[in-house]
Amino acid sequence: MSLPDSGRVLSIQSHVSYGYVGGKAATFPLQLLGYDVDVVNTVNFSNHSGYRRFGGTKANATELTEILAIMKTNGVLQPSRLLTGFIPGAEALTAVANVARNLIEETPNLIYLLDPVMGDAGVLYVAADVIPVYKSLLPKSTIITPNWFEVEVITDVKIIDATSLRQALTILHTTYAVPNVVISSIPVKEWLTEFMPSSLRPDETSDWLLCLASSRVDGLSGPSIVYAACVPFIPGYFSGVGDLFSALVLGHYSPSAQAALPAAVSQALSKTHGILRLTDAYASTLPEADRQPTDDELDAADPERRVRRMRGRELRLIQGQNILRGDAVERSWQLSEWVDFWRD
Amino acid sequence: MSLPDSGRVLSIQSHVSYGYVGGKAATFPLQLLGYDVDVVNTVNFSNHSGYRRFGGTKANATELTEILAIMKTNGVLQPSRLLTGFIPGAEALTAVANVARNLIEETPNLIYLLDPVMGDAGVLYVAADVIPVYKSLLPKSTIITPNWFEVEVITDVKIIDATSLRQALTILHTTYAVPNVVISSIPVKEWLTEFMPSSLRPDETSDWLLCLASSRVDGLSGPSIVYAACVPFIPGYFSGVGDLFSALVLGHYSPSAQAALPAAVSQALSKTHGILRLTDAYASTLPEADRQPTDDELDAADPERRVRRMRGRELRLIQGQNILRGDAVERSWQLSEWVDFWRD
Repeated sequence: MSLPDSGRVLSIQSHVSYGYVGGKAATFPLQLLGYDVDVVNTVNFSNHSGYRRFGGTKANATELTEILAIMKTNGVLQPSRLLTGFIPGAEALTAVANVARNLIEETPNLIYLLDPVMGDAGVLYVAADVIPVYKSLLPKSTIITPNWFEVEVITDVKIIDATSLRQALTILHTTYAVPNVVISSIPVKEWLTEFMPSSLRPDETSDWLLCLASSRVDGLSGPSIVYAACVPFIPGYFSGVGDLFSALVLGHYSPSAQAALPAAVSQALSKTHGILRLTDAYASTLPEADRQPTDDELDAADPERRVRRMRGRELRLIQGQNILRGDAVERSWQLSEWVDFWRD
Repeated sequence: MSLPDSGRVLSIQSHVSYGYVGGKAATFPLQLLGYDVDVVNTVNFSNHSGYRRFGGTKANATELTEILAIMKTNGVLQPSRLLTGFIPGAEALTAVANVARNLIEETPNLIYLLDPVMGDAGVLYVAADVIPVYKSLLPKSTIITPNWFEVEVITDVKIIDATSLRQALTILHTTYAVPNVVISSIPVKEWLTEFMPSSLRPDETSDWLLCLASSRVDGLSGPSIVYAACVPFIPGYFSGVGDLFSALVLGHYSPSAQAALPAAVSQALSKTHGILRLTDAYASTLPEADRQPTDDELDAADPERRVRRMRGRELRLIQGQNILRGDAVERSWQLSEWVDFWRD
């Protein structure tokens, strides 16, 4: 009658009262998968910052440290998995990093998914002094889920071709000793289409994103074994997608399974894409004023325009809970091995 | 494929990182029922105060007002239902009360479940100046879910017999103009056994609790129509039960249904009792040191004793999500009409 115990996730992320980013995008999906989620809020905001108008408070390093210290004293800081996301300042991130280090020391099997949330599409949205803290924390992670921009920030490599992509992954796996790297959505440009094997290449001509999962393996021709899949790009920016995806990767990751990383990423990708499609379909039913395309100039002239779009694009997690449970995934996206990734 | 839209609940309650009280006890069950839940945190604590050791921050009136004001400016303060629970200070409660009044004015059909969280079993755990604020807010509610001690605090009537119970309910329905009153667990003492009709009286001799739902109706012999059911008492104090129950009453309340209140309360009672049984069964599997009975003297001598018991009694909401969804309710508790409640 009751579900099996999936375990306990400590999730340290932002909280918004309205909508689904950060902890609000991660907690419910993990709970549906059977995890008890201990939710530590790094900020308490009204809504996500993409609305531009938002308010509330940030937890400072002292507050975060106190909450986690009391949990420890009470014997309730015993997660089997750790998930860290948006932590806006270097001091708060350092406090979280210290807790992460202690937890890993006490729990050698702790699975730590680190989402190094720093920015997107060329724009940093954390203070620059956060970057070195993330760099020092990376070797403690089990899985990281940067977007391509965050990969560039960490590795100082601009990803423009096969060589630079290989170089960036090498730095993550060797310099930063990260066992598992997942980059969920690399825009499929010409160089990438030419680089990827024909088995991965999409038949249809439209915009695609590449999802890449790379696990470090010793004694191979390259530093890792790479899996990948292409998924269709859904136009428009939807906030919280990365947070949802990371939570699902962590939730589905089963370290003892064969090809554990691509198996988890395939599930996470399929469910995230399903939720995105549901959200996009919902947004398309809204009045025209609520579904205007992204246009920074028009938004600047009329801030309500941006707010209306943001409202219409909040993830439909509640309405899509069958998808998240795996009962209603319309189309499944399976990653397959990219055999010649490291071969010139 | 996607669930129907149940609507949107604005939930203003406490947050704890570990465990299930306040918002952590209410949000997940409402999400499972298909509600988008806008979560405004009145406190951010490590764990509930029953552990005695807890830490974190309280949101002050200014912070709560700001978050709710920005949600309003962004057009995202549009709940169809409102749920308020633990709000520890009079100033913060006043801020929430103002928002509630405005919402009700703008949304005449708003369903407002007010849980006047003030104390339990003879002990107040909010400041005394909270009481008049609750009293002034009661007439705005659709449903209230006080425990019997909170009924006594609001009405200044000590419930010791049929007369005082009738008197307290009359005050709630008339002086405070509350349409629906639910008292989830009145200890069934001798006077109550004698008062209740034989159809309600339990056959087995053990400890029982009475769950009572009273809806104001004009033009009857008394001020309300009363429904009730007896459920077995599960020994031990489990935190968050009231928060879970209130959320389920709100979630299941369908104002256009026949006998809307007892229908919702029957569902809430059955599911809450199912979760309690699951939690109790889990607690009984723990090592003896983690399931010592409540004993304030022994707890005072050894604070760890209390902490261990609290940990073992955290509600098993995640493991019991099938119960919360209604797929696995082992035994259903239906309220029936207490026809002669108001007849001397």
